[in-house]
This record gives sequence, structure tokens and C-alpha cells, in this order.
Amino acid sequence: MRRWNGWGDDTIEFALSAEALAFLAQRIGAGTPVADADLAQVCAQIGGSRLPPQRLIDTSPEVRLRNACGQSLPDWLRLRYGVIGTAPDGVAYPESAQEVRELLDHAQQYGVAVIPQGGGTSVAGHLTAPAGTRPVLAVNLTRMRQLRYLDTESQLATFGAGVFGPDLEAQLRARGYTLGHFPQSFEYSTLGGWIATRSSGQQSLRYGRIEQMFRGGTVETPSGTLQLPTFPASAAGTDLREVVLGSEGRLGILTEATVRVAPLPEYEAFHAVFFPDWKAAETAVRQIAQACLPLSMLRLSNPLETLTMLALAGHRRLIALLEKYLALRGCREQKCMLLIGVSGRRAPARAALREALLLAMPHGGVHVGRQMGDKWKQNRYRNVYLRNAAWSHGYAIDTVETAVDWPRVEIMMRAVERAAAVALEQYGERVHAYTHLSHLYAQGASVYTTFVYRLAGNYEADLARWKSLKKAASMAIVENGGTISHQHGVGSDHAPYLAAEKGALGMSTMRALFEHLDPQQIMNPGKLLP
Amino acid sequence: MRRWNGWGDDTIEFALSAEALAFLAQRIGAGTPVADADLAQVCAQIGGSRLPPQRLIDTSPEVRLRNACGQSLPDWLRLRYGVIGTAPDGVAYPESAQEVRELLDHAQQYGVAVIPQGGGTSVAGHLTAPAGTRPVLAVNLTRMRQLRYLDTESQLATFGAGVFGPDLEAQLRARGYTLGHFPQSFEYSTLGGWIATRSSGQQSLRYGRIEQMFRGGTVETPSGTLQLPTFPASAAGTDLREVVLGSEGRLGILTEATVRVAPLPEYEAFHAVFFPDWKAAETAVRQIAQACLPLSMLRLSNPLETLTMLALAGHRRLIALLEKYLALRGCREQKCMLLIGVSGRRAPARAALREALLLAMPHGGVHVGRQMGDKWKQNRYRNVYLRNAAWSHGYAIDTVETAVDWPRVEIMMRAVERAAAVALEQYGERVHAYTHLSHLYAQGASVYTTFVYRLAGNYEADLARWKSLKKAASMAIVENGGTISHQHGVGSDHAPYLAAEKGALGMSTMRALFEHLDPQQIMNPGKLLP
Repeated sequence: MRRWNGWGDDTIEFALSAEALAFLAQRIGAGTPVADADLAQVCAQIGGSRLPPQRLIDTSPEVRLRNACGQSLPDWLRLRYGVIGTAPDGVAYPESAQEVRELLDHAQQYGVAVIPQGGGTSVAGHLTAPAGTRPVLAVNLTRMRQLRYLDTESQLATFGAGVFGPDLEAQLRARGYTLGHFPQSFEYSTLGGWIATRSSGQQSLRYGRIEQMFRGGTVETPSGTLQLPTFPASAAGTDLREVVLGSEGRLGILTEATVRVAPLPEYEAFHAVFFPDWKAAETAVRQIAQACLPLSMLRLSNPLETLTMLALAGHRRLIALLEKYLALRGCREQKCMLLIGVSGRRAPARAALREALLLAMPHGGVHVGRQMGDKWKQNRYRNVYLRNAAWSHGYAIDTVETAVDWPRVEIMMRAVERAAAVALEQYGERVHAYTHLSHLYAQGASVYTTFVYRLAGNYEADLARWKSLKKAASMAIVENGGTISHQHGVGSDHAPYLAAEKGALGMSTMRALFEHLDPQQIMNPGKLLP
Repeated sequence: MRRWNGWGDDTIEFALSAEALAFLAQRIGAGTPVADADLAQVCAQIGGSRLPPQRLIDTSPEVRLRNACGQSLPDWLRLRYGVIGTAPDGVAYPESAQEVRELLDHAQQYGVAVIPQGGGTSVAGHLTAPAGTRPVLAVNLTRMRQLRYLDTESQLATFGAGVFGPDLEAQLRARGYTLGHFPQSFEYSTLGGWIATRSSGQQSLRYGRIEQMFRGGTVETPSGTLQLPTFPASAAGTDLREVVLGSEGRLGILTEATVRVAPLPEYEAFHAVFFPDWKAAETAVRQIAQACLPLSMLRLSNPLETLTMLALAGHRRLIALLEKYLALRGCREQKCMLLIGVSGRRAPARAALREALLLAMPHGGVHVGRQMGDKWKQNRYRNVYLRNAAWSHGYAIDTVETAVDWPRVEIMMRAVERAAAVALEQYGERVHAYTHLSHLYAQGASVYTTFVYRLAGNYEADLARWKSLKKAASMAIVENGGTISHQHGVGSDHAPYLAAEKGALGMSTMRALFEHLDPQQIMNPGKLLP
């Protein structure tokens, strides 16, 4: 069953090895495990529902609790420490656009705030029920999950917007197709959530970001139904899909989405290349990204992330051998690992890989074959479980991400890592912060930093640590010309930093847009725009 | 000098051969030349200016006339017959964002309508001054044309938004770069115009539509300055570039734009392939488009366009030989010509071309080498001059274009051509209507139809013919699920058909957006939204 206070399925454990724990202890000190709050206790905190009764709404405490949080660190603190704060007054699981319409009409009539939900994997505080007197309804779309239409000629598939990643891929695979959208949250996030937050998957280099995949659909808004027809391209005024993309539940509920699909790839492979240092690695990946090769993934870890991945990989003897070989080839303490993915028809995929390896060579790139890449692919969704394992040993894991043009990529990486270290110093704590470039573009890269640090052991102290860290990292992003999010969205956590990139006029323009479609402002209030 | 009542430069003539004229006479009857109105006469029609004086505004009649029209057929009728109707009360040629600001403030203060202008190549009635009591100011951006910054690391170039295509490419070429945006209007259209109308160039398969190229910029709106920073990608709420794209002057004036550029291609070639009939050709190009090959262009002519191109090509003996060879290979009366372009590094470009030719073969594709393609490239911007030549022999040329998903491509092509024939039948006239797919996508294609028909010889009758034809073609587009424009924009001519794809809520959303940025609605009133 879905874990109520952590990531994923509660039958899946991902243990940290003794070596991994020793590595962390050496880096940031030994952690002290913290006792988790009990589900029944936490449910008992959920107050009475203030919602006017409606046939589709479930007001039982556990259902409300299970729709009260995403996966941001503050969400975790609320659940683990049992300090739940607000929760929706009820949850509805509509099964049709008509039922969504009925719920929105009900909410408008009674002045109820509405939070659309998919799989609840937000790491930016998209799902928190606002405090105040207004009742809050969570509308969970995950029962709307059917493949409704597949147009193989145009390679378009229409799904209920609440379909989970694996379910979507299984329905497509049965017909020989794939969407190719694989964010790390894939197993528990939904199509509608991806669209509402402008998600980007690990193989976006081949399949595009969700913006490129999203071709049309239907949105129920408080002002009525917005129908988005599919065209291969159009010059007819404003592209209204762009109004829906990244709207984070502020203007309505996406009930159905048509997405671009592709035939299942005939061939797929992930290869690893090591570079002697960051400078060489960054130059090489920039050149590869700018060569417009039909690759499916480029993912470059900085030296500390590379070290961490090797330390946590297990297979100590194999890794030692690998490191010996790499050292002989010039890749030592500062080495950086690049993963290169290809997906598609065999001949062009292999040709693209060869070209990429050729471009890596002059920068000291050492190709070590498929083993590391295959391992990464195997664990691509399991690594998220590390967060559960780390917590049980007294460690918090959090991430921040941004994207910047090439001249600022390295500056950004160092600034974010440094900001985190400074932020935790005031608590006498160290942070283990490492970074990878998760998505590579001709123009620049996303910069994705992971923080591991020790839990203080109580809600207030841990919230304070997180707040300091989040603020410092976000300020570093803004000050160095990055976007406040490349792939996680804005939600509550990033909302204070949005004006830095949108400007006052941009912010008011977004607000005017949302208010037009939601004049009473019942939709996900407080998210995205502060 | 720029021709005041037709396309392009008045030193360039593109004569129609005797064979071409015979071909047209046989298809739709002989044309009767019409005498053009005289520039001085037309200028004399321009009334006094109602604008409050401002240091930047020129109110002389000829300048106002030269900024009164685009290149739509109604624009031509106004100029050629000397029935000018409305013209702006004055024209400003600002040289900086400050001057644009000054002009907008002046316009707001005195309730002046503002029409932003680039090269004046609109074929959809974007530039017509509205009738009524309000004075009208044309703001012509073409003095803002400098390459202001080139970031070679991120492959981004920042230009004044009024830069013409050839000037933009020349400034980039001097640094080893290209934008790669080559619409047919290239010689006389501007970067800002491309962005405001969501333009698409002939090599969009390689370089993308202007939407993909436009990475950031500055827009002066009546409500203030909208600054759009550059990021490689972002998940931070609404992408405000999308608010500017396709806004057709309704929300402000783009003064500066940052675009993605690419190194000049090491290799470029255009090859021709013939197919025995439409069915085979369409299936082949769909498969090629869906193979995601790094091509730069696919352009498929239907049988009548193929016939027309060969008839107008000159070199009668060579063409006869070619047709003989094609007939032996199975391509006869119904043959369709496909042009395939590749641009980039030599090895991958040639490999992509080989792959495309392999995909064409099973559908009866006959590769005839580079000659036809080179010829097409040579004449890509000269063909527009045909419109001048045809007019001088008593013929009108007009085009409509749309895009649809694959299952409707052939239906659309036949419906638009048929609608035009029916529309002109009521005048006892025939139309020579032929079509090509100008832009190919995995999802579908743009469908671009050219109409040649005889002029009636007076303004009212020719406007009536055009209105009938335009309405019939537009209705055919809407009824068959196409977008009202794939690359020309909406302007005045397509505005009545926009609601069919946007819906009432979509239309009001666009209006709300524009009104937020332009509360007094001074910007290009009546365009885009009727």
C-alpha cells in the first residue's frame, strides 16, 4: 500500500549499507533516528469537516490526511512528527468531467477552496490546504485514468488526466507506443500533474518536456469549459495550452489530455563516460548538447555527486577496480560521471552515441560502457526510496533545481551548494551537497542539487533548518539569474521568489489570467502567486 | 526602392513566359491587364492628420500611405485601384525603447490607436487603420535593427526587434552564426513581426518555428515594461513569452528580442523526389516526418502544384526529358514533387538524407538529385514576385494555409481547393488552385493552397470575388478541423474564424490578457479579436 508518511509503497525498503552510513557519518556526522508519529494519532488531529455535504465528497479523516500533503520536506516533517496543521475538509474522486463540473459548481456555490490532486508527489508545497475559515476540498483525479483514444496516424493519445505514469505507459505499450515521460516521480505522479507543473522527464532530450508532449485537452474552470483542440502547429493568436501549462491548479481542473506518443524504441541504452574534472566535463556536454544529436539523455554529475554515487553503489571491489582504471586514464578525485542515453531505431541511436563519444574524447572523456548506465536505469525510480532510508537513520534529504544559460552554470552550482553550507553552519551542522546537470540544452542546463543533512529531532527545529536552507538556496538561484524551477514547479515553497523572474507586470498578468477563469478565486489559493 | 503597390523592390521584375501565360489561359482563361492608380493620386486621398503633434511623428501623406497596408489581397486592391480607405494619421520610426515608451505614453494620453509595424508583409490584414474618430499612429520599428549582444556559449543573439531578415542574417553570418528562419517573406519581414505573428520558416524542421527560437526580450506595453529573461527551460508558472507570441500588436511593442542561433551549417542541400500519386507521397512524408530524422525541410506539392511548377520552370526541353524519365519510373499525370532539405554538419546531414530516401522508395519515390532543389532554393524569395507579374497580366494570386492532424490532411486539401472553385463559379470564373504541405510534423502537416484567378477589373468586383473565395476557404478550414492559420497569423481577415478553435472562453481569456496589459485598448484595435 502507498506509504502515508514517506515515499512510495510501504512494502519496498531500500537499505543504506554500512559503508554508505560510514560515508555519511564522515561527511556530516552520525544521524540520530527519530520516532515517527502514528497514523491513528495523526488522523485524530484532523478536525470536523466544514464542507456542505455533497454526494461525491468523502470526509473521513484518513482519506483527508492522505490528500493533505505532497513530498516536500515540510510535508514530510508534518507527517513524520505528526504536526499536521491544515488538511482538506473532504476529498472527492470524480470519475468523469461531469463530476468535476458538479464539484466545481458546488465549490463556487458555497465558497469552497479547491485543490486539484494527482499522485501527490509535489516537492514544492502545491497541495497544502490554506488556513482560514473557508472550507477546502481536494479533488483527486486518479480515477480518471483510461486511454480514451489512440490516433496512430498522428501519434496522439488521449487519456483521463489522472492516470499514473506506469499505468499510462502500460496502456500505451499494449498498443506498441510510449509517451517517454520519465520524471523521477514517475511511479506516483500523473499526467495532469505533469502538465499543471511543467514537468520534465529524464529522457526529455528525445521525447521533449511535457510542454512539447501536451497537444490538447479539456479543462473545467469555474468560468466554464476550456476545450483545447489538437493541431500540429498554429499561428492563431495565443496558444491556450500555454495558459494551462504551469497553472498549478489556479485556473481549473484538467480532465482529459491528448499527448504526443512515439513507437516503442527498438533500441535503448545508457552509457557512462568519466571526465577528469568539471571544466572538461561541462565543456564536453555543452558541445554534445549543441551538436543536436538524437540522444535521449545527458546527465552530468559533479565530483561530489560522482563520489557519492560510487560510494553508495555497493559492489565495493568492482568500484575499486573501476576507480583504479579511471585514475590511470586521468580521472581521479575530481572526476565527473556523464550518463548518455539513446532510444529509438538501432542504427541512428548507435550512430548518435558514437558521435557523442567522439565529442567527449578531446576533453579527456573515458567511456566505460553500459554497466553504470544500466545500473542507473534499473534504480532510476528506486533511488527516491533513499529518502525513507536516510530518514530512518536521522538524515533529511532535500533537493533544489534551476536552469541557467551556459555562462552561469558552474557559478550557479557553486553558489547553491555554498549557500546551503552557510545556511546550516548557523546550526553547527554540515551539509553534504552535490549536484548534477539533469537536462542539457544548447542554451544551458538545469542544475539539480541534493542536500543531505542531519535531523534535529523535533518539528520546529527541523522546519527552521529547512527554511534556512531553502531560503539560502533560492536566493542563490535568483541572484545568479536562474529560474526558480526547471521541473518541480512553484507551489508555496517557490512562490516568494517568482517575481524575481516574472517582474511585477508579469505577476499581475498571470493573476489577471487566473482571475478571468476563476473570478471567485477558489482554485488552489495561495499557490504559485503569493 | 520598395515598391509601394506590390511585392518587393521595384527594380526587380519576374516576367511570366509565353508558355506560362498560355498555361494559365488554358486553365482559367486569358487575363485582362488593369491600369494601376498613380502614387501621387493615391497620396492626394490621404486626409489631414488628426494626431496631436509629437516630435517623433511624421504626418506626410506618402509616409502614411507606405505604412497603411500589408500584402493581403484587399491591401493590393486598395493600392492598385487607388481606393485607400483608412490610413494612419502619422508614422513614427523610434530608435530606442525610450522612444517607443514616449510614443505609447503620448498615445495613451490622447487616446490614439497604435499599430506596430515591421516590414509590412502581413497577408492577413494586420496593419489596416481602423475607421472611426480615434486618430491612428503607426509605429514602425525598422530603425531598431542592431545585433546588440551575441552569447556564443549559449548560442543566443539579442537584436532590435525591427531588424529585417537579410540584415539579421548578415549580422549573424559575420560572426559565424545563423538564425535559420526563412519564411517566404524573409527579405521584407522583421524579427518582431515574426514573433508577433508566430511565423514559421521554410527550414523549421531543423531550426524550429519562431516560438522555439524566441528566448526572451523586452515589450513596452501601455501598462509598463514586460521583461522576459532567458532560461534554457523553466517550470515557473506561465511562460510569458507565450503571451507575447501571436499577440499581433494587441498588448504592446516588442523592442528587443533574444533568439536562439546556430553555427552556420557546414553543408546544405535540397533534393527532389517524385511520387506516382498523392496517396503514396503523403504516406511517405508522414513516415519520414515521424522518423525524427535531422532534416531541415520537407515540402510536398500535390499533382496540380507539381504540374504548375514544371510548367512555369522554363527549360522546356529539360523538363520534357525529366517527365519522360519519371513516366518510365511510374510517375505520370498524378505525380507529386517532394523537396527534402538538409543543413548542418556534413556526415549526419547526408546520413539523414539517405534515410529519408530509403523511406521514400517503398512508396514509389524517384530521387532525381539536387537540380530541382537547388533551383527552388535559388528562387525561394523570387517566386513572391510572380504576384506582381501575374497582376500585370490581369490575374490575382492569393494563398490560404492551415494545419491539421494526419487523418484530415488530404480531406482538408481537397475541401479548400473545392471551396475556392465553388466560390468563383458564381462569378462564372475558374480558379487555378494547387496545394503543398509546407511544414511536416509527426502529428500532421500544414496545408498551403495557392489560388490564381482572373481580375474583374474594378475594386468592388474584385473585393467581392476575394471575399467569396476567402470566406469559402476559411469555412472549409474551420469545418474540417484546421487552425485558421499555421504561419500567417489572424489579423483582420481571419479574426471571424478564430472562435471556432478557441471557443468562447478561450476568446474571452485572450481578451482579458490583452486588456490587462492595455487597459485603454489602444493597441492594434480590431485585429486578432474581432
